[in-house]
Amino acid sequence: MLQYSPRQDGYGTVLRLHKKGLILTERTQTYRHALVLCDGEKPSVEQLHALRMEDTLVIAADGGGNIGKDWEIRPDLIIGDLDSDDGSWPDVKRLYDPDQDTNDLEKALDYAHVQGVSRITIIGGTGERLDHTLKNLSVMVRYKEAFEGLVLLDNYMKARLISSPFTMSTWTGMKVSLVAASGKVTGIVSEGLLYPWSGQDLIVGHYDGTSNQATGEQVTLRFEEGDLLLIVPLDGQSCRVAQDGQLGHDGPPGHAEQPSAGSIS
Amino acid sequence: MLQYSPRQDGYGTVLRLHKKGLILTERTQTYRHALVLCDGEKPSVEQLHALRMEDTLVIAADGGGNIGKDWEIRPDLIIGDLDSDDGSWPDVKRLYDPDQDTNDLEKALDYAHVQGVSRITIIGGTGERLDHTLKNLSVMVRYKEAFEGLVLLDNYMKARLISSPFTMSTWTGMKVSLVAASGKVTGIVSEGLLYPWSGQDLIVGHYDGTSNQATGEQVTLRFEEGDLLLIVPLDGQSCRVAQDGQLGHDGPPGHAEQPSAGSIS
Repeated sequence: MLQYSPRQDGYGTVLRLHKKGLILTERTQTYRHALVLCDGEKPSVEQLHALRMEDTLVIAADGGGNIGKDWEIRPDLIIGDLDSDDGSWPDVKRLYDPDQDTNDLEKALDYAHVQGVSRITIIGGTGERLDHTLKNLSVMVRYKEAFEGLVLLDNYMKARLISSPFTMSTWTGMKVSLVAASGKVTGIVSEGLLYPWSGQDLIVGHYDGTSNQATGEQVTLRFEEGDLLLIVPLDGQSCRVAQDGQLGHDGPPGHAEQPSAGSIS
Repeated sequence: MLQYSPRQDGYGTVLRLHKKGLILTERTQTYRHALVLCDGEKPSVEQLHALRMEDTLVIAADGGGNIGKDWEIRPDLIIGDLDSDDGSWPDVKRLYDPDQDTNDLEKALDYAHVQGVSRITIIGGTGERLDHTLKNLSVMVRYKEAFEGLVLLDNYMKARLISSPFTMSTWTGMKVSLVAASGKVTGIVSEGLLYPWSGQDLIVGHYDGTSNQATGEQVTLRFEEGDLLLIVPLDGQSCRVAQDGQLGHDGPPGHAEQPSAGSIS
């Protein structure tokens, strides 16, 4: 219900959190990367363990904190109205925020922004209820200016709203899908895609951009306006968060040692 | 890649199918309802068996035909480029359509339209890969004028693009989510919702409409322009397709005998 108005110093967010009566912790450490755990479909233990946790702030969005049952990742904080918190982590700090105008993911992103985090990886943000998935995509659109990188990751794909121009490392045949997250993206021009774009608009219900693939080692995308969601299906590759907080593939299937192909950060 | 141009007699679709060199079967029976099986997350056997199959044309969109392994629903036809067809139904007719400009769901909907079907239930159209789910939503937007009803159903929710005005039976506390499928829906006015709409716009990234709920036995929605996706989370209720091809709940949890509450057809 709120339009996100990013400020360079995060002042807008701090103001909102203060208005809610939330006590902000002082920053004892500056994190570049935050892992936000949501309450949707869980990633595999293998995928999660492949995420490197160094220099990463782990924020559980309410029920996302219950992962203790299945995984061994302890959140630094659990935030939300806590109606889905099953108490899995009795000694983890809770930040109770009952605001009905923001969902749990928004609360977690607000907190990360206040903490100065620049890159976010959201897991458990898809699957099960489609309305939750679509709401989380809308939240990503809302917060895209607030972070340098905002990646949504599950067992099947990773997705990111990209800026123009955008370049990523690829391999021949790597699947790449483009989606207009807010209905329309204008003037797309691509290099390195099997079905190239030469200025067309991507429009929901009229002109789609899924099921494309890379023709070589690099794809570049340019566009004029809109929220362009880049989705890279994983097809069994493992994923990792590199030391700089970037999220990358380990390479094509059968070539797990290829260092950073397919990074969409 | 094609803009759908519905004609009353389906002539446009027939023309496209002929252009592809597809041989059209003559209509031996007129169906009002078609069940389209896609290759995403499978619904539970219980849910699928609760769908009444009388007077229903069952179209498998390529790999959607493989359900024979898990379910006991025999498709009348398998359509697509057949690259995902595992041969589960050796004696079912295949319609090979390798067109790269349409996905399997579009091919199935084209076929249903030619057969004069007015109501569609899509299952297996969500889950697993987000790009496939979003593509299928885009296809729903494209074909919304071609059918009287176009419902997307999975284990967690049913979704439908609605026209204005729209009324549905509900019960107090029934969850209702609204999503702008193509980015923006203008001037929404509601009756019977806990968080009412009084002319606001629904805009991806700015103003969302998920996690609402009904306050009584009926919800009415009006809006000006846009593609309004109505999502009703199931929360464990069973689903059925009524004799007229309408899709309805069996009622709130614990009240399975309530005849047609929650219909969104």
